[in-house]
Amino acid sequence: MSSENKIVVLTGGTGGAKFVDGLRRAVPPEQLTFIVNTADDLEWWGLRVSPDLDSITYVLADLLNKDRGWGVQDDTFQCLQMMARLGQPAWFQIGDRDLATHLLRTQLIQEGNTLSEATAEIAARFGVTARILPMSNDRIETRVQTPASDLSFEEYFVQRHFRDPVISVRFAGAETAAPAPGVVDALLSATTVILAPSNPITSIGPILAVPGIREALCRTSAPVAAISPIVSGAAVSGPAGALLASQGLPVSIAGVAQAYEDFLDLLIADVADRNATEELRQSRVKMRWTNTIMKSANDKVELARTVLSCLAAEISREAAVET
Amino acid sequence: MSSENKIVVLTGGTGGAKFVDGLRRAVPPEQLTFIVNTADDLEWWGLRVSPDLDSITYVLADLLNKDRGWGVQDDTFQCLQMMARLGQPAWFQIGDRDLATHLLRTQLIQEGNTLSEATAEIAARFGVTARILPMSNDRIETRVQTPASDLSFEEYFVQRHFRDPVISVRFAGAETAAPAPGVVDALLSATTVILAPSNPITSIGPILAVPGIREALCRTSAPVAAISPIVSGAAVSGPAGALLASQGLPVSIAGVAQAYEDFLDLLIADVADRNATEELRQSRVKMRWTNTIMKSANDKVELARTVLSCLAAEISREAAVET
Repeated sequence: MSSENKIVVLTGGTGGAKFVDGLRRAVPPEQLTFIVNTADDLEWWGLRVSPDLDSITYVLADLLNKDRGWGVQDDTFQCLQMMARLGQPAWFQIGDRDLATHLLRTQLIQEGNTLSEATAEIAARFGVTARILPMSNDRIETRVQTPASDLSFEEYFVQRHFRDPVISVRFAGAETAAPAPGVVDALLSATTVILAPSNPITSIGPILAVPGIREALCRTSAPVAAISPIVSGAAVSGPAGALLASQGLPVSIAGVAQAYEDFLDLLIADVADRNATEELRQSRVKMRWTNTIMKSANDKVELARTVLSCLAAEISREAAVET
Repeated sequence: MSSENKIVVLTGGTGGAKFVDGLRRAVPPEQLTFIVNTADDLEWWGLRVSPDLDSITYVLADLLNKDRGWGVQDDTFQCLQMMARLGQPAWFQIGDRDLATHLLRTQLIQEGNTLSEATAEIAARFGVTARILPMSNDRIETRVQTPASDLSFEEYFVQRHFRDPVISVRFAGAETAAPAPGVVDALLSATTVILAPSNPITSIGPILAVPGIREALCRTSAPVAAISPIVSGAAVSGPAGALLASQGLPVSIAGVAQAYEDFLDLLIADVADRNATEELRQSRVKMRWTNTIMKSANDKVELARTVLSCLAAEISREAAVET
């Protein structure tokens, strides 16, 4: 791909960070713009924490703890232990090195910067040259309704280990929110758009719930590809299966296709699902098959390259049709 | 001493914390009330940091790093290193465990608690049963005027290693400040009052500058003792010598006596100064001599016991005079 590529990636969660780890090695980071879920953001110990923005920043800065999929590599938890001793909540684990990011973000926002500006500043200080955009500077919060209570995403996912049945998911604040500066422009001027293999409901879902973003995905002339986070009828990791089901979607590549059906051009699914296309007959989406399970660094780069070459082929095909 | 003792200690700095470490072993902590300097407090990384309150809290909780004289024992500095990498100031060293205290204090104050309330809450959570009172809930800031600039105490002391000549010292905000709740009552109802071997100008000086505190020290019926932080014409540690000189006071036990002359009953000085009483002829203060250099845990307890027995003798003598 040429240096004029503008690759825009919608992402959130650990699956997204894994894919981004491959992508950053497959193309120059200057070609990459990330539109990141912020509906899992929380106030923690008085600090503004943005888990998905942090994971993307850390992976691009080569600082992500890849065993856990979140936080900073080789981090320690001295402050957390002291917080627990002081009777403060400790179920959301912030490492000592990780804390610096939250302290700086909180300060930047208290000084009057937007989340966009704080995100760009933190990324620059970590030496990240890719562009990281929060989906919105307005506060949007994923709320997971369970039989017992109404939980934030982190309460549902981290504190309660996604063991509760999910009745419904909503994105509080989304109706009145606006996309962060640059988000719609990035989508409209992109050469390719990729939806990372993130949870379609709680990682990509909140991004799509921001008024204007879904419309931009429908309008953009760039081909839009998604990598399925569902393989063989189950999520590769996390609660994507239960969450798809809670929305009345099948827990399969067809469910992923349905979630994105109004704007998706290509669905890249695992070779394990090559024969699971029965449900997709109604869909206009084109399927591509590859190994989507990212175990090694090589798996990640290979997946990124495959996705990019599928998209490049799509661009060539469309160009051929037009001439 | 009986369980009805009410021992009130004015303190600040590393000398104060050392003395308190002995005192807490010499008497039941329930008998102790500390009135602590807050004029070195600073906003750091967006957090509210109270170095002297923390040192007293940590020493009473048996958590103080005694090698340094500040911070938490066995602490690590991962967050600090990351802050430095992010281009944030790192000259004021906050450890990872120490950070928990500042995060909690900042949250408590943001939730509407006063510094007094936050201090009591933090102390209780650390299991401290002695009473720790900030000198004031109003913001008072020690400013050190040097030939080059006007510095905060931490800039002068920590960042610039007290190498600048001192022209003058002032306590910005003191004129309009009030003592924190309980401070004046504690002094007036005390059975004994002790000024720790802290810097008379920048640790005890700000406490005395709060309107009402010096008057309470003059009015209290309790005997007031000070332990001299000056031995053989020099400070045991830190810049007390230069600071006394900047106020036109001699760098000697006589300078300490002069700083406190309107309310001091007993000055407890080191045996090394037993013959340095020439300048004290004008003073009404009574001198007591002991080893004031605290190297071992035993030195600290011995000094505390000696101070308490000097005060007990003073109470008995006064009682005898009255009957």
